[in-house]
Amino acid sequence: MMIIMHPGASKQEVQDVVSEIAERGLNSHVIEGVERTVIGAVGDSHTVSPDAFSVLPGVASVMRISQPYKLASRQFKADNTVIPFNGFSIGGEEIGIIAGPCSVESRTQLLEVAHAVREAGANALRGGVFKPRTSPYAFQGMGEEGLELLAEAREITGLPIVAEVMAVSQIEVMTKYVDVLQVGARNMQNYNLLRAIGETRTSVLLKRGLSATIEELLMASEYILSGGNRNVMLCERGIRTYETATRNTTDINAIPVLKSLTHLPVILDPSHSTGYYEFVTAIAKAGVAAGADGLIIEVHNDPAHALSDGRQSLKPEVFAKLVKQVKAVAEAVDRRVAPPLPALVK
Amino acid sequence: MMIIMHPGASKQEVQDVVSEIAERGLNSHVIEGVERTVIGAVGDSHTVSPDAFSVLPGVASVMRISQPYKLASRQFKADNTVIPFNGFSIGGEEIGIIAGPCSVESRTQLLEVAHAVREAGANALRGGVFKPRTSPYAFQGMGEEGLELLAEAREITGLPIVAEVMAVSQIEVMTKYVDVLQVGARNMQNYNLLRAIGETRTSVLLKRGLSATIEELLMASEYILSGGNRNVMLCERGIRTYETATRNTTDINAIPVLKSLTHLPVILDPSHSTGYYEFVTAIAKAGVAAGADGLIIEVHNDPAHALSDGRQSLKPEVFAKLVKQVKAVAEAVDRRVAPPLPALVK
Amino acid sequence: MMIIMHPGASKQEVQDVVSEIAERGLNSHVIEGVERTVIGAVGDSHTVSPDAFSVLPGVASVMRISQPYKLASRQFKADNTVIPFNGFSIGGEEIGIIAGPCSVESRTQLLEVAHAVREAGANALRGGVFKPRTSPYAFQGMGEEGLELLAEAREITGLPIVAEVMAVSQIEVMTKYVDVLQVGARNMQNYNLLRAIGETRTSVLLKRGLSATIEELLMASEYILSGGNRNVMLCERGIRTYETATRNTTDINAIPVLKSLTHLPVILDPSHSTGYYEFVTAIAKAGVAAGADGLIIEVHNDPAHALSDGRQSLKPEVFAKLVKQVKAVAEAVDRRVAPPLPALVK
Amino acid sequence: MMIIMHPGASKQEVQDVVSEIAERGLNSHVIEGVERTVIGAVGDSHTVSPDAFSVLPGVASVMRISQPYKLASRQFKADNTVIPFNGFSIGGEEIGIIAGPCSVESRTQLLEVAHAVREAGANALRGGVFKPRTSPYAFQGMGEEGLELLAEAREITGLPIVAEVMAVSQIEVMTKYVDVLQVGARNMQNYNLLRAIGETRTSVLLKRGLSATIEELLMASEYILSGGNRNVMLCERGIRTYETATRNTTDINAIPVLKSLTHLPVILDPSHSTGYYEFVTAIAKAGVAAGADGLIIEVHNDPAHALSDGRQSLKPEVFAKLVKQVKAVAEAVDRRVAPPLPALVK
Repeated sequence: MMIIMHPGASKQEVQDVVSEIAERGLNSHVIEGVERTVIGAVGDSHTVSPDAFSVLPGVASVMRISQPYKLASRQFKADNTVIPFNGFSIGGEEIGIIAGPCSVESRTQLLEVAHAVREAGANALRGGVFKPRTSPYAFQGMGEEGLELLAEAREITGLPIVAEVMAVSQIEVMTKYVDVLQVGARNMQNYNLLRAIGETRTSVLLKRGLSATIEELLMASEYILSGGNRNVMLCERGIRTYETATRNTTDINAIPVLKSLTHLPVILDPSHSTGYYEFVTAIAKAGVAAGADGLIIEVHNDPAHALSDGRQSLKPEVFAKLVKQVKAVAEAVDRRVAPPLPALVK
Repeated sequence: MMIIMHPGASKQEVQDVVSEIAERGLNSHVIEGVERTVIGAVGDSHTVSPDAFSVLPGVASVMRISQPYKLASRQFKADNTVIPFNGFSIGGEEIGIIAGPCSVESRTQLLEVAHAVREAGANALRGGVFKPRTSPYAFQGMGEEGLELLAEAREITGLPIVAEVMAVSQIEVMTKYVDVLQVGARNMQNYNLLRAIGETRTSVLLKRGLSATIEELLMASEYILSGGNRNVMLCERGIRTYETATRNTTDINAIPVLKSLTHLPVILDPSHSTGYYEFVTAIAKAGVAAGADGLIIEVHNDPAHALSDGRQSLKPEVFAKLVKQVKAVAEAVDRRVAPPLPALVK
Repeated sequence: MMIIMHPGASKQEVQDVVSEIAERGLNSHVIEGVERTVIGAVGDSHTVSPDAFSVLPGVASVMRISQPYKLASRQFKADNTVIPFNGFSIGGEEIGIIAGPCSVESRTQLLEVAHAVREAGANALRGGVFKPRTSPYAFQGMGEEGLELLAEAREITGLPIVAEVMAVSQIEVMTKYVDVLQVGARNMQNYNLLRAIGETRTSVLLKRGLSATIEELLMASEYILSGGNRNVMLCERGIRTYETATRNTTDINAIPVLKSLTHLPVILDPSHSTGYYEFVTAIAKAGVAAGADGLIIEVHNDPAHALSDGRQSLKPEVFAKLVKQVKAVAEAVDRRVAPPLPALVK
Repeated sequence: MMIIMHPGASKQEVQDVVSEIAERGLNSHVIEGVERTVIGAVGDSHTVSPDAFSVLPGVASVMRISQPYKLASRQFKADNTVIPFNGFSIGGEEIGIIAGPCSVESRTQLLEVAHAVREAGANALRGGVFKPRTSPYAFQGMGEEGLELLAEAREITGLPIVAEVMAVSQIEVMTKYVDVLQVGARNMQNYNLLRAIGETRTSVLLKRGLSATIEELLMASEYILSGGNRNVMLCERGIRTYETATRNTTDINAIPVLKSLTHLPVILDPSHSTGYYEFVTAIAKAGVAAGADGLIIEVHNDPAHALSDGRQSLKPEVFAKLVKQVKAVAEAVDRRVAPPLPALVK
């Protein structure tokens, strides 16, 4: 930790900071600059808050030097975390494509979409059964009935299942059904939920909060990792900015930044990060070009009648084109999309 | 709902929108402009998603005309909601001041601060016992033991108690102890939590999310109100912007905007909205000048050793000055700070 | 400057940084921490770019310790800069109110508004004659003809004149007519313009850019100050955020932050910072409560027919109420609005 | 234009809006909804401000239906604008790569970098001679001497020249030397400069402002186009958001959005949009995958001693790898990087 003094700080004020550093069991290094004095506090400062020094007289600011996350860092684990699924993996050379409807709405809808995305080359099936909706009057999801439909869809298609968990009380039932627990953007800092998921051994897709920093996303993953659950994928899904031409702003920079900071796989959700079906394919390709380890895409057989997110859902035939184009980009950057499951014998 | 067609939309595309409107039980009004056609969809459209039209060919965009919230709106209830407490109220003419430590840390600390803020003129006591911390390794709060200390502080000082609830599982124990359940910024869109709080009849302080819009804050309150719990206070606590000179940016505009849109009381938290103790008093005065119905302020007897938020906590003597200055501003805008409790007989 | 090494940086890499520091004429202080090494570079580093070190192998990041502005800082000049006008001053105890139309549109309009704001208690008259408009097809201002009208209005009312300068080529003619050159938000980083204004001795009202940081605003003022023009007022006029309920977000925090960092007067423009006339009065009061040294307010006699900014312009009678209320708040914070000019003998 | 009334608006208020619409020469269409009345104003409303209606009693809000830009729109010109250069073009199938130092610093530096980027496959040379610097004390560019060096570099290498123009007074000399006038982010709304550039017939690279919306960028191009200069390229260079892990946030969405709205070529500047050389290559590839028509990249032979932007400058050998990788991605999306100039006979 570096403590930067105000230009006019007195010798006594510097001395008081040094004493406080000693009281915390750390060592001081005082650097007298031309304008200001800077004091380095050396030692294991993970449990010491910068506030301990920043409120002292004469202190201008305090800067942490070390990263606040550990288990998520490349420093802790240099090799990529690779998460295995039925027939493919995410985090290694292969790029996984997760696709499906925003919400599970009915057996017919789900199976139709599941077959379509499988045929187009998707590697996993997404579908929401507990839906976080801005309005209390909007469709809130099918609940456990939807989980049964997802399980049936997996049974038939062989696709692993990804679904969002919104509350601690849903974890038990969800882990019976799903292959990946998705934590939504609005719950990225729901720490009770993160801790409880950390106790399970089900893989996790952790979405970045609407205005979470990259560091906060890593800290949220740290909650899960520190519980012993190491299969965490991070998901960039667009951040909130002043631009209103799209629903969110895809923080494409976050992909190479995260790959440099962490060993965890990084997934891009171009459906939410753009909010308009017209732009999903272009941004999916951009994500893979930037180094994403996977994509999660909303696909609906009848977007005009979707109960949620119709505006950003691709029709199956458009999704099939997306997969083709993404494959070409993946190869151009020396990766490859995970192979599709073999054709079903009907 | 207004459906705006692309400039080159065909007659058939317009007709298809009109048909879709009819299918939803709404009436169409077609306006042929110079460049574009606009179609109004009239009727009760609360359950119809704009996406139903926005994905149709030829449609450029769809705009909702009506507000998505009802119970929270001034249109639904023109008179201010006034929430009564022991000896004062919030939402009417009086301005209430809630003060106390970020976290309850010990009996000594809590009682010392409670006495100090009471003497300075605070009307209620805040103190966190379940703490949402960015780091899983940071102090997470005293839990139920802290609630017992808060109850004791109320017993001794007469100050009503405000504490944050982070999870559905905490509601039962918290409603036994506290006068106001605080929903933190990170949980503003934790809909399961909001619904469960809506089932209680304990007053609520709902903090705006870090990047929530004013409309989303009102929608979050709608979750609580629609459960039958009508005693909701809204709290502006600063939003996330590009500016890094302060921890957050106080959205002071939100105060008059909210007062125009809703009948619910509006509270300002200048401690979080600035993040630096030096600026808390200036912004507290600004909030009252702008029309806030109350303030919530972090006060600590020893900020350098606070277990959380020391940087933005006021010392008791600084808080006492703040109260005096806020009183003067309140009178200048024809309001008054709720009177302090009578001196304790020691 | 502090150079923070990567956790795994080698001894040679540290040594190379130390050599580079020496080459720049600075001294090194090496602090070996538990995880990382930090190197302090001490000496006059104003002309050394952090990039000189940040691109070296093993360097994680480089932090400047000193403020990049000098002449604008409180450290350089502890006492407030007080700018004198005809009959009042800005920056001292008095609060100045500048009011008038967004654009000068005609002699009748300008004189009508000028008389109205004078009578209501304004201390100076604003009016744009060169208008920065988002659209090339919108009204672009009356140009020099408008300056003549402003001069006539000053002649009649005695109010000093504030008008925006958009280009270096306009400076000569404008300084003949106006008392204060306003630099608009879009030109805050038009460095050629700032330098040229720095060569004049006309007072300046420098508006914060739409997404400028507080530090960037101070750096922009440094351009003017370093030319020898010391009469610079800074103006908070709202920043761009994700919130769309108002035109901009008033960064009310900027007022006490600026007052702590600089000796220059700080003005608030609640017309632009809200964008809606309904909210101007509340935010004007908040600004004064937070410590602003002045206000600049758009007033129009017929907002519905204003050629620009009608939505945020106050009618004269509403402005008169604003002045009364602002006076009360000013007194509550131990300031006072500058006295109005004596009534005109008609 | 659509005028949305408040829920409680009176018949008289609706009538007054209708009268005002008629007074402006437009026709009214009144739609009485369940909660509110909406009034469509039909006709040529380009010269009518929404404020004309928004300030009338009973009006809640006013929405423009038509795009405020014309010449820049796809509607005005469906085919892509293709800008020809020496041996290649931008805006058609070919992707152009512009590369060079942030600032021209010396003859040796410029020629060394020019040869290196030419050899690596760049199609044009960038180099700043008038530099917009946050600090008045920083290196401000070589001025006309730098232009002569750029001309010499073009003479030797055959690469067209791109350089930033900061002021109207620089246009005359710059158009003598450069092939493309670059308008920097800080000057995107310097309307006097845009108008003057519109009078020239030199090609333009118009950079998006730090917090400009996509619509504002198009409006800025409209200033240039309306002067008769039709060779305008738009440049995404990152926007300002709350995220501090990178210098700016690359708004990758802007690429497909712009391509859908306008016929003008779209260039990406991954050097500024990330701010760190480590991330430039990944984002360059993402930009091409998303549909960019060109790239502009900062390259320096000795970043540690660059006078500006060293942190984000690529060394020539890293740039050469970038070009190779970008070529592969371009082919994967059915485009191709413009061919390099033939090897120089030395």
